[in-house]
Amino acid sequence: MAATTELPRALRPAPDFATVFSLLKPHMAALDVFLRSQIEAFEPEIRGMADYCIDTSGKRIRPALVFLSGWRSDGSIQPELVRVAAVVEFVHLATLVHDDIMDDAALRRGRRTAAREYGPEAAVLLGDALFAHALHLAAQFPTTEVCQAVSSSTRKVCAGEIIQTLRRGTTAISRADYDRVIDLKTAELFRLSCQLGSHLAGFPPAFSEAATRFGRHLGMAYQIYDDLADFFGEEKRIGKTLGTDLVSGKLTLPLIELMERLSAVEQAALTDEILGQRPPDLARRLGQMAETGVFDTVAEAVETELKAAEQALVPFVGEAPVPLLLRLCEALRAQVGGLQVGRTG
Amino acid sequence: MAATTELPRALRPAPDFATVFSLLKPHMAALDVFLRSQIEAFEPEIRGMADYCIDTSGKRIRPALVFLSGWRSDGSIQPELVRVAAVVEFVHLATLVHDDIMDDAALRRGRRTAAREYGPEAAVLLGDALFAHALHLAAQFPTTEVCQAVSSSTRKVCAGEIIQTLRRGTTAISRADYDRVIDLKTAELFRLSCQLGSHLAGFPPAFSEAATRFGRHLGMAYQIYDDLADFFGEEKRIGKTLGTDLVSGKLTLPLIELMERLSAVEQAALTDEILGQRPPDLARRLGQMAETGVFDTVAEAVETELKAAEQALVPFVGEAPVPLLLRLCEALRAQVGGLQVGRTG
Repeated sequence: MAATTELPRALRPAPDFATVFSLLKPHMAALDVFLRSQIEAFEPEIRGMADYCIDTSGKRIRPALVFLSGWRSDGSIQPELVRVAAVVEFVHLATLVHDDIMDDAALRRGRRTAAREYGPEAAVLLGDALFAHALHLAAQFPTTEVCQAVSSSTRKVCAGEIIQTLRRGTTAISRADYDRVIDLKTAELFRLSCQLGSHLAGFPPAFSEAATRFGRHLGMAYQIYDDLADFFGEEKRIGKTLGTDLVSGKLTLPLIELMERLSAVEQAALTDEILGQRPPDLARRLGQMAETGVFDTVAEAVETELKAAEQALVPFVGEAPVPLLLRLCEALRAQVGGLQVGRTG
Repeated sequence: MAATTELPRALRPAPDFATVFSLLKPHMAALDVFLRSQIEAFEPEIRGMADYCIDTSGKRIRPALVFLSGWRSDGSIQPELVRVAAVVEFVHLATLVHDDIMDDAALRRGRRTAAREYGPEAAVLLGDALFAHALHLAAQFPTTEVCQAVSSSTRKVCAGEIIQTLRRGTTAISRADYDRVIDLKTAELFRLSCQLGSHLAGFPPAFSEAATRFGRHLGMAYQIYDDLADFFGEEKRIGKTLGTDLVSGKLTLPLIELMERLSAVEQAALTDEILGQRPPDLARRLGQMAETGVFDTVAEAVETELKAAEQALVPFVGEAPVPLLLRLCEALRAQVGGLQVGRTG
């Protein structure tokens, strides 16, 4: 692999996802062709449903991690990476289909969810079929290692979602509980994407392990950012109503941190809001989060994970994927910065 | 493999499942130990839920097919077969968990369903985790073929269930439509069990192909029998209320056959019952099924599949699994006979 002398600092002028992702256009196009070609593997009666789920409007951040972790300096498209990017995307799509049943969500990225389009019953099974197809693709690699890694990660993602679901309706959730859930439900697939991308591209195990650690920390950072954006994002930009986590009783880090800072009386009131026993007072809670430093603490938590992600790559700064992966950290950092502006603007 | 000269005819004196299954006691005990040992692979928070699903009261017919298809004349327990029996059982348990959400079922074999015990949301994810663990076990064989076969079958089982779900609320279902659904939702896992059992036990490909065909036809026979038992079984024996398929609007073969035999006026009435637009008149429909020969036609359909299953094994009558597999056909035939007694008694 060709070494590059580019350093993280030098990248800071253009720290957004679009810049990094523009490099991946041909890879994503290849992925899209591959995903569409898989529709025929499904039984004729459900092809339309499977096709409906392969939405092209998503960020496809997991496939991007596969391609970037296995990046070669010539930017070539490696067929193994396209296949494994499809595997992680199918797993992710399956979890979205099942998540939307659970949240009784009507829309996702401006389209009706599969649960609304086909009914929750069919959607349960459609998610299963997408999972099964992910594993089927994983089983087409020469050895069982991809299948092992994907099935193990899938089980962890489900466990994370289960734990989160079972905790709804309780407000006794610690920072450690929160970290565990996001590690399982989000960081696990980020981790897997980096692990498989770097490994299948033929990088040495030491780099692959570093990329795997990077992926996990980036996943943690991404989920904490996402939970912060639920309170402080621009609705237009994040594409959903603010405060949905409070409304649905999901105790994310901003709420955990706010709870700790409130008086006993206010804690009781917020608890009632989280448990759905009184209507959430979003404006009040946002104000309290700003006043008591919740925003800064949570943004700090993102930063801590981003630093750990970057740290993992330090010994491998000469490898082709590294500058690109570091750019993702910069881009996420910039997104957090954008939230802060939104808060005061 | 030791040859045996035992012939199907000679087996007829003891044609019940218990006789065949008694041979499998040590194998099923080994399977149970293995299944329980897998609980630790799940995240601590969901181990209790996974354990709850490993119900020991089920017939475990799919594991039985694995053990019988790979039977050696010394009756030895082969670890590969125990593992693959666990794989098909985990897939089956996952489908049960999801089926019970769909049917909003309260009880399964006298216990609360996972959906009722943990809520439908958690049950969706629990089913996913069981699926994922099945694939994880499948990926632990030396080559990818088990994983490929299991993921492909799982996708087909889901497709069959989806097609069945989407068809609820329509009465324009042909015999061919029905056959396709049961082929996917039931026969596929029976087929897989026989394929993997015979293959992993080291039988030659020609026998494994024959066992695979046997499994598929036995699966078809079993599902048609099950659908007939829904109308003509003894409630105590089949462990559920009669006529549930009519009540839930599931157009199984007995109803398809009945529909064809009714006058236009009666067809309209039955259609209303299936669509839930009037309360089902079960006694009337049972009487009509008996009078118009529906029972005999459906019993005949079971017999046709059983004959095809037996036929597949004819060239391999000297192989150790064959007498045992044929005994299963006899046992199912006897169950159908038992239904007929129930009808007139």
